[in-house]
Amino acid sequence: MSIKEDVKKIAGEARAASFAMSRADSESKNRILAEMASALESNSAAIVTANETDLAAGRAKGLSEAMLDRLMLDEKRIRGIATSIMEVVALPDPVGEVTRMWQRPNGLTVGKMRIPLGVIGIIYESRPNVTADAAALCLKAGNAVVLRGGSEAFNSNMAIASILKGVISENDLPPAALSLIPFVEREAVTEMLKQEEFIDLVIPRGGESLIRFVSESSRIPVIKHYKGVCHVYVDEGADTEMAENIIVNAKTARPGVCNALETLLVHRGIAGEFVPRIARTLAAMNVELRGDEEFCALAPSAHHAEESDWGAEYLDLILACRVVGDMDAAIDHINRFGSMHTEAIVTSDYSRSRRFIREVNSSCVMVNASTRFADGNQLGLGAEIGISTTKLHSFGPMGVEDLTTTKFIVYGDGQVRKST
Amino acid sequence: MSIKEDVKKIAGEARAASFAMSRADSESKNRILAEMASALESNSAAIVTANETDLAAGRAKGLSEAMLDRLMLDEKRIRGIATSIMEVVALPDPVGEVTRMWQRPNGLTVGKMRIPLGVIGIIYESRPNVTADAAALCLKAGNAVVLRGGSEAFNSNMAIASILKGVISENDLPPAALSLIPFVEREAVTEMLKQEEFIDLVIPRGGESLIRFVSESSRIPVIKHYKGVCHVYVDEGADTEMAENIIVNAKTARPGVCNALETLLVHRGIAGEFVPRIARTLAAMNVELRGDEEFCALAPSAHHAEESDWGAEYLDLILACRVVGDMDAAIDHINRFGSMHTEAIVTSDYSRSRRFIREVNSSCVMVNASTRFADGNQLGLGAEIGISTTKLHSFGPMGVEDLTTTKFIVYGDGQVRKST
Repeated sequence: MSIKEDVKKIAGEARAASFAMSRADSESKNRILAEMASALESNSAAIVTANETDLAAGRAKGLSEAMLDRLMLDEKRIRGIATSIMEVVALPDPVGEVTRMWQRPNGLTVGKMRIPLGVIGIIYESRPNVTADAAALCLKAGNAVVLRGGSEAFNSNMAIASILKGVISENDLPPAALSLIPFVEREAVTEMLKQEEFIDLVIPRGGESLIRFVSESSRIPVIKHYKGVCHVYVDEGADTEMAENIIVNAKTARPGVCNALETLLVHRGIAGEFVPRIARTLAAMNVELRGDEEFCALAPSAHHAEESDWGAEYLDLILACRVVGDMDAAIDHINRFGSMHTEAIVTSDYSRSRRFIREVNSSCVMVNASTRFADGNQLGLGAEIGISTTKLHSFGPMGVEDLTTTKFIVYGDGQVRKST
Repeated sequence: MSIKEDVKKIAGEARAASFAMSRADSESKNRILAEMASALESNSAAIVTANETDLAAGRAKGLSEAMLDRLMLDEKRIRGIATSIMEVVALPDPVGEVTRMWQRPNGLTVGKMRIPLGVIGIIYESRPNVTADAAALCLKAGNAVVLRGGSEAFNSNMAIASILKGVISENDLPPAALSLIPFVEREAVTEMLKQEEFIDLVIPRGGESLIRFVSESSRIPVIKHYKGVCHVYVDEGADTEMAENIIVNAKTARPGVCNALETLLVHRGIAGEFVPRIARTLAAMNVELRGDEEFCALAPSAHHAEESDWGAEYLDLILACRVVGDMDAAIDHINRFGSMHTEAIVTSDYSRSRRFIREVNSSCVMVNASTRFADGNQLGLGAEIGISTTKLHSFGPMGVEDLTTTKFIVYGDGQVRKST
């Protein structure tokens, strides 16, 4: 068999297995997931051994310490993976939920019922925990899953996937409901992305280059997660202490993540009071400020921003800053330079809080809260399968429900259609 | 300017206009739509003149009478278009609806709010009424729309679009919220499909070759509407008169449409009674039956089915027929040969009605009702923008709500995130 044929076979078997998965009830799915969690813990020695092979190869290849750390699994980390699976067990099962139901004049009852998407492809990079985390979410939502991990973690991923598959077989469900593509060659990914007949959705988890490669090569719909250029707008009359806390949290708590603050917009009416204060605070925390002229006049420590600073995703202790005439100017700036990820307003004004929520169409829009809350877990979705920065199907953080779709269900008493 | 530059410009201006459209309130949108309806009626002479140019060119090109009829507009048909727009006015506005809201332990209130998708591209074939119908639905949902109609209807479409654009300008919204690509060249379509920066979704309306071309050439997500291979399964103990009525309606009322019945599955326990009856009835209505061996033994008038009859979309007075051992065999047949469009069970059994609804994951699953109800209007969505036969974003008939997505909205009192 060639890579091409093998990948097609895996995808075809996943499609066949998806029918059985879609019929599995919540109790069965939760039992399987719980057994997966304990099987990983009780087989941790085998996983660690496989992981050591990967680590040795990684060291020989000269991977950075940070990369090796991402790759490393020990008993404690395996326990962490098991705990994550148990958190998925605790989530409500979205499948079968009737989200709405209505009556038609002819007596038909029509509803929409959640069903699994079918087969989900997950393409990820070096962290082997994704093998279990992503698989658990896909299975919980009644899907089959085809995994393709990074080559550095090949042996670790194979060890984890084989344990998980074993649990599925023991529970009389088709083991093809979970597959890991057993090839390190890139050709395996491009073949996987051609299986539009069998795979319903592909979710790439990794850096921008992986996401671009996947979405440009795929015939299957892809959930894209591009940049997070998040804005905080400080409104006239805002509580300045609250604004400062939110900005400090959003910019400095974890500057390297997509929900970190990248651009600060300050209303002209509060700039004289607020800009010197926030500039002092951020400078003391080693944040480099890049302001427009008006901002720099009030904060002499700030550098002058270039046009390229608007819309920049620094992922670092750098903040673009601008003084704006009013909220509409702030919204225009966000629409022009933002990435539709997350924006927050700090305000005390009722009417503007309503307008900001209504008129800013980023995936998360917040009033008086840190942009750092743009995260599936923080928003209450439970575990997160990814974040979508495009609007089709899902927009923003995605939980288990986003791995489903809805079908129409129709209950009749023999109705036929008279009109054409 | 070249086609390439012009198409890009149109798409970019549509994106800019989409921000204003997304903020328009329901009253404004409904007023504009109502004015569009009356503007079309009061300018019907100009539309008819443009249409006559298209008809003359069509006749010279040797278009069939059926094609010419599809293309033709007269005062009555224009009144019909205006009426359709008024039906869109009457629909509830989906934008701004908060579909859910919940509290987080830290006091944040989190919700999901419907927002427009942004810019919708519609690519369609010969019927000029789509110019107005599709535009009205997109605008109602707060989107900008870029239209690309068939070359045969070029002058009719331009006349209609220019009247509609005029109404938008008069109402202080950017006329770029509605554009028609003014080129008949195919290059204009391929350029349009490259504008993923500006267009959020493309909906092709037309035959399978158009849909394939669009979905294979597009960098923008496409809603696909492929085959409708609809099944009716007659269960043991079903009301045979009801089954007959449903089958006759589903097969013969309009055999050329996607929700027409293509394959009949009959439970073995009722076959001896039901097959001769339905075979007689359908033969009298000139329906050609293609049965498996068991079916043919009970219905001598039936032809023997070939393997290619399972899964065939005849769109004609032909019906594939099979006797099955039980409902599971029927579901297996549907999963193997169906197109996930619409399936119905005729049954008197409570438990099997529940199982069929739950276990068949086609876009419309029905109990004791004709497959012909798989239609946005019949299901109660109001006007239909299309039917999706794939599961991402929407599955099945799509109404105005399917032209929206949801964003997260978060209300806080200064919360910051403590964990990492």
